[in-house]
Amino acid sequence: MSIINKEVQELVDEKLKESIDSKLNGWVEQKVRSLMEERVSALEDKIKARETRKKRVAIVASKGSLDMAYPPLILASTAAALDMEAAIFFTFYGLDIINKHKYKSLKVPSLANPAMPVPVPNILGALPGMTAMATLMMKSWMNKAHVASISDLIDVCRESGIRLIGCQMTMDVMGVKKSDLIDGIEIGGSATFLDYAAEADIPLFV
Amino acid sequence: MSIINKEVQELVDEKLKESIDSKLNGWVEQKVRSLMEERVSALEDKIKARETRKKRVAIVASKGSLDMAYPPLILASTAAALDMEAAIFFTFYGLDIINKHKYKSLKVPSLANPAMPVPVPNILGALPGMTAMATLMMKSWMNKAHVASISDLIDVCRESGIRLIGCQMTMDVMGVKKSDLIDGIEIGGSATFLDYAAEADIPLFV
Amino acid sequence: MSIINKEVQELVDEKLKESIDSKLNGWVEQKVRSLMEERVSALEDKIKARETRKKRVAIVASKGSLDMAYPPLILASTAAALDMEAAIFFTFYGLDIINKHKYKSLKVPSLANPAMPVPVPNILGALPGMTAMATLMMKSWMNKAHVASISDLIDVCRESGIRLIGCQMTMDVMGVKKSDLIDGIEIGGSATFLDYAAEADIPLFV
Repeated sequence: MSIINKEVQELVDEKLKESIDSKLNGWVEQKVRSLMEERVSALEDKIKARETRKKRVAIVASKGSLDMAYPPLILASTAAALDMEAAIFFTFYGLDIINKHKYKSLKVPSLANPAMPVPVPNILGALPGMTAMATLMMKSWMNKAHVASISDLIDVCRESGIRLIGCQMTMDVMGVKKSDLIDGIEIGGSATFLDYAAEADIPLFV
Repeated sequence: MSIINKEVQELVDEKLKESIDSKLNGWVEQKVRSLMEERVSALEDKIKARETRKKRVAIVASKGSLDMAYPPLILASTAAALDMEAAIFFTFYGLDIINKHKYKSLKVPSLANPAMPVPVPNILGALPGMTAMATLMMKSWMNKAHVASISDLIDVCRESGIRLIGCQMTMDVMGVKKSDLIDGIEIGGSATFLDYAAEADIPLFV
Repeated sequence: MSIINKEVQELVDEKLKESIDSKLNGWVEQKVRSLMEERVSALEDKIKARETRKKRVAIVASKGSLDMAYPPLILASTAAALDMEAAIFFTFYGLDIINKHKYKSLKVPSLANPAMPVPVPNILGALPGMTAMATLMMKSWMNKAHVASISDLIDVCRESGIRLIGCQMTMDVMGVKKSDLIDGIEIGGSATFLDYAAEADIPLFV
């Protein structure tokens, strides 16, 4: 009786194989896809979106001295050159950087900075005219090294689509009006900054 | 000697088809799920957890002047209002902000800041009384613009569950004891800050 | 009219069942895996890579006073101790921290900081010798509290594989040459920092 066994077995296996080859293959594939494809594709799309989205830089500019006005503007314009998004939130003294009456005359403090490249004893640094001298000195070094001026850097930022945001609270505290600010400025609060920074790759407080 | 005649072949085909039609559908579905469901669900849960978790803000407050005490507290309390988690790590001069003997008398420096709203020549800014005057001036502007005081902002932070952490090293260096600090403060080191900030969306050094 | 006797029918049923149970099982499993395994594994690997990769700290050190030289070095060396990667980008006054002619003589400003632990009226803080006195005072407190010196912290950073990067633009502006810098320094620009920081968990501007 085992010959019959063997022959039936072989017939069944052969028929099964034919079925698999012709029919089941495509059918199971379609079943698997209909169950999993959408979900797996959705996951792949999310991961891919995160990998390919532009990087984002979010900077708070809180200082108004000439030397500390450079880092936010240089970092933001470099970010734009690297095809990253960027926004600068100008608050406290940093508001001067976008104040049309002040931004072309930001100054370098002549004292209280022992790391000043030309060390001046504080007592001399306190004398009238020393702030102007420290400022002139820094501007001439910046020029010689071909670093753009503050106002040129602001132009670059604006043209690159970098968001420049003036802090509402600082404007209230210091009595600065929208009309005192240069063009192309949005007004916002710390919530504006935090919402932007929450999705940023590089948040920095200068 | 084969019993496998055409009729047996047709029988196998028919039985195979019945089996496939009745059994396979539900069976393949269950197989796919048992192989893939758990893994795909786990991935979906992880992605979802990341998308829905609260944002986190981690701030280092290293400055003790009145003007620079505001940014950490305003950013942290705004974060809480936006339903984000936050912690402030008070280190170096920033420890004064949570020092009960100092936090209600933080001062604004009257010199070395060419961006002071009322520019005072450094030589005058150095005179006795000028620090007090600059401080009074800033406090009155803050008041007029309805900005909360430092101590009110600290209350808001504490009540919002924001972690306020005093730097152990700074306490050692400056001889400050836990009893010198206001209530509701944890003590920690830079590792405490880095561990918290490693999972933060918005780490900032003020 | 069937000549297919009952035994053959039962045999066919039995063989079919065995074949389906044994063959199809393995075949469907292999089909599902071949369709989905690679994609699901790839997703799992990506998520896992992100969860297990080392954390990264990216610091800008822009200040050159002794007190503000500590935070970047302490944060970076603590990061290394926590098995995180780190890089410090020394720019503006911060370049002094890696300038071999300056890094062992960084100073603490004696004025314009109302949060100085030993408050000195600005007018006295401006006198010759006060910077040196403030610096000596801070160094002695740091010593007593067993905080490493700047140059020891730099050694720790270098030995831990922390990248120390000097800012090209600052070197140009301040006329500093590579030979003025300590060993083990790379030179880079703001793009170098931004590229590193874009993948950092903890970017900080000191």
